[in-house]
Amino acid sequence: MQIEIVTIGDELLLGFTLDTNGAHLARELAALGVEVVRRVSVGDDPAAIAAAVREALDRCGAVITTGGLGPTSDDRSREAIAAVFGRALHLDEAILERLRERWRVRGWGTELPESNRAQALIPEGATVLENRHGSAPGLWLEDERGRWVAMLPGVPREMRGMLADTLLPRMRDRARSPRAEAPVIRSRTLRTTGIAESALADQLGSLAHRLEAVDLAYLPGWEGVDLRLTARGLPAADAEAALARGESAVRGAVGKWIYGEEGDDLAAVVLAALRSRGLMLAVAESCTGGMLGARIAAIPGASDVFLGGVIAYENAVKMGELGVRAETLATHGSVSEQAACEMAAGVRAKLGAGVGVSITGIAGPDGGTAEKPVGTVCAAVDVRGGGRTFRRVLVGDREEIRKRATQAALDLVRRAIAPDS
Amino acid sequence: MQIEIVTIGDELLLGFTLDTNGAHLARELAALGVEVVRRVSVGDDPAAIAAAVREALDRCGAVITTGGLGPTSDDRSREAIAAVFGRALHLDEAILERLRERWRVRGWGTELPESNRAQALIPEGATVLENRHGSAPGLWLEDERGRWVAMLPGVPREMRGMLADTLLPRMRDRARSPRAEAPVIRSRTLRTTGIAESALADQLGSLAHRLEAVDLAYLPGWEGVDLRLTARGLPAADAEAALARGESAVRGAVGKWIYGEEGDDLAAVVLAALRSRGLMLAVAESCTGGMLGARIAAIPGASDVFLGGVIAYENAVKMGELGVRAETLATHGSVSEQAACEMAAGVRAKLGAGVGVSITGIAGPDGGTAEKPVGTVCAAVDVRGGGRTFRRVLVGDREEIRKRATQAALDLVRRAIAPDS
Repeated sequence: MQIEIVTIGDELLLGFTLDTNGAHLARELAALGVEVVRRVSVGDDPAAIAAAVREALDRCGAVITTGGLGPTSDDRSREAIAAVFGRALHLDEAILERLRERWRVRGWGTELPESNRAQALIPEGATVLENRHGSAPGLWLEDERGRWVAMLPGVPREMRGMLADTLLPRMRDRARSPRAEAPVIRSRTLRTTGIAESALADQLGSLAHRLEAVDLAYLPGWEGVDLRLTARGLPAADAEAALARGESAVRGAVGKWIYGEEGDDLAAVVLAALRSRGLMLAVAESCTGGMLGARIAAIPGASDVFLGGVIAYENAVKMGELGVRAETLATHGSVSEQAACEMAAGVRAKLGAGVGVSITGIAGPDGGTAEKPVGTVCAAVDVRGGGRTFRRVLVGDREEIRKRATQAALDLVRRAIAPDS
Repeated sequence: MQIEIVTIGDELLLGFTLDTNGAHLARELAALGVEVVRRVSVGDDPAAIAAAVREALDRCGAVITTGGLGPTSDDRSREAIAAVFGRALHLDEAILERLRERWRVRGWGTELPESNRAQALIPEGATVLENRHGSAPGLWLEDERGRWVAMLPGVPREMRGMLADTLLPRMRDRARSPRAEAPVIRSRTLRTTGIAESALADQLGSLAHRLEAVDLAYLPGWEGVDLRLTARGLPAADAEAALARGESAVRGAVGKWIYGEEGDDLAAVVLAALRSRGLMLAVAESCTGGMLGARIAAIPGASDVFLGGVIAYENAVKMGELGVRAETLATHGSVSEQAACEMAAGVRAKLGAGVGVSITGIAGPDGGTAEKPVGTVCAAVDVRGGGRTFRRVLVGDREEIRKRATQAALDLVRRAIAPDS
């Protein structure tokens, strides 16, 4: 089964919104074994919407759209896609009643705004996909040849909820093949950090030709380089076997750089390792300003392991709250392995944690020197009084340097508490 | 001038990478007055790349691609796009020498990996776009009819750098019209927070019909709802005048919800307001775990105003470091306006700040109760001992609730220090 994704909204063409919907859909569909062959974004223009949907239907007969179902005048998907199918719009009383009820419960006011009524207009013959997460209902339109378009709302949370509640189950039923030997797409990702893409490629280059029926892709990002193995066109069992062989070969070659698999966040990997060792964690952050703590707190259940920490943005806070010595700052500077060590030890002692980890650096755009250019980051970990440090010049802009710094600090913790290090 | 953007990479179809490149390009092109009419993403498949580029060239004659220029076997853009133009590839010695030099300087090793040599293969007749930010050079191909494709690398930092260094100046020269009356696209965004999209639409509905030559779009997100005014097809001076009239009308109707304009981050707005009043800021965070501090520290120059704070994830830290009373926690719970007030006052006193701001909440997925469901967030601000608080049930998943909480806390600070509040 092949499909195309069409995301709709002027904001996508003006670049003011990231197409997170397209990415989420692609991920969920890949997991279902459905091959996304193209993604297209067009503006809130009925002619452009209709053209993109018509071309996609002609290419592969199955299209998911997001956006343009809202209550305002720039929401044009219903009419444009109804026209592709030659259907008229009519007012659906049941939807209108649900919209009224929802408005009352939310407590924004007593009367449904007039503009919300447009959301109750649906094409003839459309199946309504219930929206339990917002006001815009989704729609499914299908022609006599079995070609279909599913329209989802553009608000990411609503789109994700509706996809999981109604659309994926419906597609799963369609995609389920009666034959065990039906070809599928399967992929697997191994996540590395601390090694360059081309260095990985060199170590894996000869391997790539030996990975029978498996493609190897390199996906660099601020977290490191992901290695994605993909098997296409094999029956499910053969695809899984090919991936298992491929994974084993890749791990044999570059395993020391691999911290996780598909979807693993290094913060979650580190939290799990701390939990299994009964160690509580505290953080001390300067240039990252809380970003490391926020990454850790993003993991559900972090409170088992994460006590909190100190954001020591100013040097007075580093001294007053973390016990960094004035002499250390005067001799080595606030961006130094020595200061990082004292920050990690200080926060560990202050919060009574087993592990303290710290970051201090120059995120830019200003503040760099010849000796410590922008991107210079020092991190330290203190595990029950024993520690290790990190110093490197990270690349990127202010945001990317800070994100890379959190990754480097987490990797420092991972290596410090690994049984074999 | 119209253009299409084609972003290339299996990871985009598998959903493992957000298409930040497409969004960045769209934003930069819109600023130049170039209309992006469609964005397309295809995989690392030469046939799919060639088809997407050929169709886009047929529609509008100008295409920018990103991705597929790297050193590995899944990088296929050069060959696919060269084939669209009927050109062969040849090895460019100057590029190869630069790659070798770059490798030496970076210090990864002494010899350029064999796989990097592929990056020195370029189509006949191509213009090389210098890459000062990474290894893959960009390429510009043009046919005898003046139709062109610019190929940029897929690594966001490199793509952005090359775009600014070489491609935008080149396009600006082409786009520069000799006639002052040439039509342009101009847009302007007003950012609101704390009001629902449909409520805004009701207040602005009648206005929309009176906004001569200006389209009004509603862009909801976790920061609030952005209002985007766009003027199309007018000469630059007329477009600016129409936008100014539109902005004035919108501000008249919903100005109290507007905290900023195009690209403004509420954190930067708040920092600027604090700076102008000579107030230093400290944060105390529970469920957000440092995310508020990280947002503030993301703003270059934050150190003028931002001292740091305490991440009080565990209740013991709330009591020990912030002076939250055990009685408060026992009576009202850690997620309460009372606890938030004590956290804000505590961190303000501890760090000697003029303003303390706090967040405590239940980000989920677990931990909700009937009285305090998941999403319940309390925030408080303490300005030199005087304060105000916030309590609301925010919608979304764990991440979105936390992000909305930082926005609500920042808005609380904004309102508390505004001269007219």
